[in-house]
Formats: sequence, C-alpha cells, structure tokens
Amino acid sequence: MSNVFVLAEYQSRLQNVRAQMERAGLDFLLLCDPANMNYLTGYEGWSFYVPQCVAVSIDGDSLPIWIGRQMDAAQAPLTSWLPSEQVIGYPEIYVQASDKHPMQWIASYLASRGWDAKRVGVEMDTYYFSPKALAALQAGLPNARWLDADLLVNWVRAVKSEAELGYMRNAARLAGHVMQTALDVIRPGVRQCDTVASIVAAQIGGDESFSGDLPALPPIVMSGRAGSAPHPTWTNEFFQKDETTALELGAACHRYNAGLARTLHLGEPPTRLLHTASVVEEGMEAALAAMKPGVAAGEVEAAWRRVLDRHGLQKDSRIGYAIGLGYPPDWGEHTVSLRAGERTVLLANMTLHLMLGMWLENWGMEMSETVRITDSGAECLTSFPRGVHRGS
Amino acid sequence: MSNVFVLAEYQSRLQNVRAQMERAGLDFLLLCDPANMNYLTGYEGWSFYVPQCVAVSIDGDSLPIWIGRQMDAAQAPLTSWLPSEQVIGYPEIYVQASDKHPMQWIASYLASRGWDAKRVGVEMDTYYFSPKALAALQAGLPNARWLDADLLVNWVRAVKSEAELGYMRNAARLAGHVMQTALDVIRPGVRQCDTVASIVAAQIGGDESFSGDLPALPPIVMSGRAGSAPHPTWTNEFFQKDETTALELGAACHRYNAGLARTLHLGEPPTRLLHTASVVEEGMEAALAAMKPGVAAGEVEAAWRRVLDRHGLQKDSRIGYAIGLGYPPDWGEHTVSLRAGERTVLLANMTLHLMLGMWLENWGMEMSETVRITDSGAECLTSFPRGVHRGS
Repeated sequence: MSNVFVLAEYQSRLQNVRAQMERAGLDFLLLCDPANMNYLTGYEGWSFYVPQCVAVSIDGDSLPIWIGRQMDAAQAPLTSWLPSEQVIGYPEIYVQASDKHPMQWIASYLASRGWDAKRVGVEMDTYYFSPKALAALQAGLPNARWLDADLLVNWVRAVKSEAELGYMRNAARLAGHVMQTALDVIRPGVRQCDTVASIVAAQIGGDESFSGDLPALPPIVMSGRAGSAPHPTWTNEFFQKDETTALELGAACHRYNAGLARTLHLGEPPTRLLHTASVVEEGMEAALAAMKPGVAAGEVEAAWRRVLDRHGLQKDSRIGYAIGLGYPPDWGEHTVSLRAGERTVLLANMTLHLMLGMWLENWGMEMSETVRITDSGAECLTSFPRGVHRGS
Repeated sequence: MSNVFVLAEYQSRLQNVRAQMERAGLDFLLLCDPANMNYLTGYEGWSFYVPQCVAVSIDGDSLPIWIGRQMDAAQAPLTSWLPSEQVIGYPEIYVQASDKHPMQWIASYLASRGWDAKRVGVEMDTYYFSPKALAALQAGLPNARWLDADLLVNWVRAVKSEAELGYMRNAARLAGHVMQTALDVIRPGVRQCDTVASIVAAQIGGDESFSGDLPALPPIVMSGRAGSAPHPTWTNEFFQKDETTALELGAACHRYNAGLARTLHLGEPPTRLLHTASVVEEGMEAALAAMKPGVAAGEVEAAWRRVLDRHGLQKDSRIGYAIGLGYPPDWGEHTVSLRAGERTVLLANMTLHLMLGMWLENWGMEMSETVRITDSGAECLTSFPRGVHRGS
C-alpha cells in the first residue's frame, strides 16, 4: 500500500496516461522505466536490474498489472496501491539464465490476457528494456503491433502536481543542506572520498521529517584537472590550496530529485574564475527571467547565450533539462531540454534543472538551480548563495 | 591515463576478448556495458546515462575506440590508456533529442571506418543499449550482420587476475568495516535512513589507502515486515526492539564489488530465527566445501539444498552469482549462477557472491560471503562473524 501519494493522484495519472495512449493509438502500454512504473503504481525497490514491467490497458475499467521477478513480487503490496491480484511474479529460473529470458514468460502471460493482435506501446529507448527483451516479446506475441511509446509517460510526468512539488521542495531544501555540508568539509589536505562520504550521508539522512534517497545522479566533484570533464568519479586525492572545485550535488525525496551545483575556490579566486562566474550568474538571471509558460525552451537558451556572446564566452551543450522522478543512472526526465532551437513550450509546474557548467581547458566551474515554472515566471526551488564560494 | 592497472593487463584482456571474438566469428565488437568498457579501456565516469560505446576490431594491430558524448570525451584521457586519437566525441545536439539518436552519428562514424558489410557483435541484453540504439545502428550500417555478443566480455571477466583480486580484497575488507558500522549504529529508536547514511559514508570513505566507490547495489536494509522482500528501499522508520533486520551490504574499490550480508536481532532472537540461521550456516559451509575448480555450479547448489532438505527448509531462488567489476544497477556479472541444474564449471579465480537469503512470510534473514575459487577449494574474501548478531 503506497503512502507516498493518495489513491486519487494515481488514478488521475492513469487517466492522463490513457489519454496519451488514445492519442497514440495504443491498446496496451508496457513500461519498463522504473520511474514510470513507480509513477503509475507507487512500486518502489531496487529490483530493476532484472526485467520487470507495468502493463496498462486502454480499457478504463482495468487496473495496471505489475509483472516482475517472483521474489520481488512481495515488495509490490508493500509499496504499491495495486491489489494483490494485479501483481504477477515470474519464476526464479528465468533470472539471468543462458537459455531463457523473463520476457518470454511475460509474453506468454500477456498472451493469456489477450494482448496478441493488439497495438502495444513499449519504451524503445529506456535503460532497462533491451533489444533481447523486445525480441522475446515479439516472438511470444507474434500478432501484436509494436509501437514506440518511449517518453509517453515521461511527458505526462513533466507537469508536477502539488504533492509532487512538495517532495521536490523537500529535495531542494535538502540539496542546500548537502551543499553546505560539502563547503564545510572541503579544505586543503582533505580527501575527495571523505568529502563525498559526508555529502552522501547528508543526502540519505534527509531531515527530521523525511528520509533522503540516493539521488539518481551521484555527487560529482570536479577538482583541479578533473574539472575539465563533467562526470568524473571521486578519488582519494587531497584537495589543494589554490584549486577550484565544481560540485554538482543534489538530493532526493521519494525518488524526486533536485540538483544544485556551485563552485568553490580554496584561496584567492583567480580573475578568470571570478569573471566567468559573474558572466554565468548574469546568464542564469537572464535565463530565469526568460522562463514562463508559453515560452519555447530554445528561447531560454537564447537569453543565456546573448549574455555569453556579449562577454565572449561559449558553451556548446544544453543549459538545462526536465528533472523530477528518477532512478539511477539519470535524474533528468529526458523530455524538455533547454537548448538552441528547441521548440518545446514550457508549462506551469514543469520542473527543470538549469545547469550552467563551463568545462574549459584544464579547469571548470558550475552553477545551477532547480526551478519550477510558475503561472507567470520561474521560481528557484533550490536556494543557496551564488557566485564563487571561498574556502581556505 | 589509467593508473588502476598496468598497460600489459589491458593488453592481455584485449587479447582474451579477441580470442572469444574469433570463436564467435566476429569482425567487430561494440560494447555498451560500462563495466566492459572500463575492463578494456580503463574508462571511468558517470556518463553511461547517454549512449556511449567501446568499439573493438578483430585486427590485432588496432586499438579500441571510445565513442561517447563530446563533453565526456575529456574524461577518457584522464582515466583510460587509449591514446587521444582513439577517443571520439559525438556532438551535443544528439543528446536526448526527439529527432535524432547518438547511435545514428556513431553508425556514420563506424561506416567511415569500414564497419559495414562485417559481422558485428553487440550486447543484446545489457542495460545501456536500447532497441532504438540497435535500430539506429542497423539503419546506418545496412550491410553489417548483427550478432548477439551479450556477456562475451563478461565471461572473459569471470576469472580474475591477481591485480583484480587485490581490489576485490580491498572491497571485501571494507565490506566488513561497513557491516560493523551498521551493527554499531542500529538500535531501537534509530531511523533506517540515519543508519544507511553511516553505512554509505563508510563505503565511500574507503580506508587509509584507497577510496571507496558506491557499490553497484545500494545498501539493502530489511527490517520487520520489509524483511519478506529482498530489495526494499530504506525509510525514515525507527528500528524496533524485538525486530529482526537483514542487511545486504558491501563495498567497492575501483568498481570491484564485494557483497556481505548478515542478520541482526534487537533483543533475544526468537527460536525460528536461530534455527533458520543455524541451518543456513550449515548450508553455507556445505556450499563452500563443494566449491572447487571443475565442479558445476549446480553441484554447489545441490550441496546447500541437501542441508535444507534435511531440515525441512526451502529456497526457490539461486544461492549465488559471479560478482566483481560492476556499475549500478547490479554488482552481479550475469555469468555464473549457483542454481539447481546449472552446468557452468567453476574455475580458479572466479569470484562469487554466495548469497543465502531466506525471505519468508513477514520476516527474513540473510547470510552471505564473497568467495574466490582457489586451486583446490574456495576462500572467503569477506570475513565477519556469522550467526545471528544481537543488538539491544
């Protein structure tokens, strides 16, 4: 039984997803993205390393079906609102076996429920649905027509409810605490790994009222030369005096993620860093000022780019993306990107990670906010002093 | 430049993989599993949430090619032994775009390098290679023949080198420290999330000589009713007196994972728990005694099952699996499973997680060891008192 959202919220999500299924001409939808499975059913657990799915019929009188490994089926009644007869476990002998695949069993089960000769949507570009899984489904349901429903649920998720925003606010508040923890700990002679230990402890500890999850993206600590690439793993190296460290951190509550990036310099910041940071901050303000319902994502990027152009700086990559419900390896929702030319229109209660990373030759800096689109503009959910932080 | 293994080790891995490619009749191999990419090139970074790959030709004079997102290409020279001309970045506009896919770009690049009209192996059942990615490759290289090379590299990885075993031993030693940390912290009135914060801090902090990674499997804390399912997520609930908690923890060093599970009871353990634990421990000893080179995986499970049968207990799921190099979501290597009837033969220097989880009606217990197959038997890399631990 989920206690994360009220039943009515799940029902409304299901209704919204069915409306999109109708528009896409789907009879059935098979979801393997754990965030989408969670979104519709509440199911939560680290079981997505084996094939599992939530099956949804267009028939409004039916309930979704959770299908997964037998041993994980016990987890569904503990976390999901689905009645137990909607939870189906496949036998253990299908797990990571060389001569069979769980999707063969699942196809047989779906055939018995009438899914053959229908139009079935699957997520063709999600992490936990492989080419072999698709082939097993196609072989077991030879008369079904397979359509790409990738991101169908993600787009429904793009606009957040009040209850979801409550968890995003928790995550954003915790992200500020996590950033402060990092800034308090980092000084010359401290190891990166010990800092990240403190960071992750703060992420998981949550606050008095809630438990933190591991965010879908682990802490990224870009120090010294590693600052030139955006996704390094921490090491046991020591922080050094006169070194710049960019920190992409964040926090998560009930798998709702908020990202927060800031930059720290141990010692007197060099002019190039202060200059770049002031341009980035001006660009951030321009991007935030451009955000409101009805504006295209590309216009937000253009507002940022005009600032960079004026100062002779350049950034080739996107400056933000939809963020929210997500499991490793990505807290991005893969829908909206704030990128040159993107025509996606922003809507009220979309949540975005406005992520301004400058990864330059041999050094880097970052500044980000997790943002909600309001009725008339944008609200930063994260709150932490901008500019270059100084340590010693 | 990787400093994790010496160049000769990477060269020997490449040679072993090419031998398997030859056996499978492959001209080229395209690897998307981040563990396999790391294994062959040393590449390390949290960039596998976007498409990326390592391309290997059967031509022994050629070097592998790393292909990934432009912004992550800067990470390759920092972690991999590949020379910079072997590192290829695709443009940022391909990232999570609705009208194009990175594998389209990668296919064009591979075509320019002569991969069309060849026999190309891809990992058809790995997490980070989607049906859409495969379709984009097939469209861009229409004359290639696509073969399933899933687990080809994983099987090469199954037998560990001395250097790899060094990292496994580090991870196993750290796992013991992590378990002790958990047992020290858990008591009635402490929240699950605060305990997991301490656990993960210990995992990441490593020890004086090395940095810990986040293990590929997060800490699993099965407390009270949640003990009936094996993969729950921690909450902000309090541990209770007279409650049994099963802990599946572990640690990782340079992405080499060791798993360790133990069971704790707060208060006087009930008879059913003590009885089950003593049977499980006897079964573990029987399984360990059965392990040696030349023995089939199924025989190890049979030795365990004979003990359970004698005591009237039952476990449907496998009792262990290959463990080692791995990224989230799974530290298992998807090769050997210790399961009834499995005919895979154990070899010296395979490493396995012998994982004895009993998930029963409304409660559960676990006991595990990370084990190396020696020349004549099995060695537990993990070392921690077995039996039921008691807290108060």
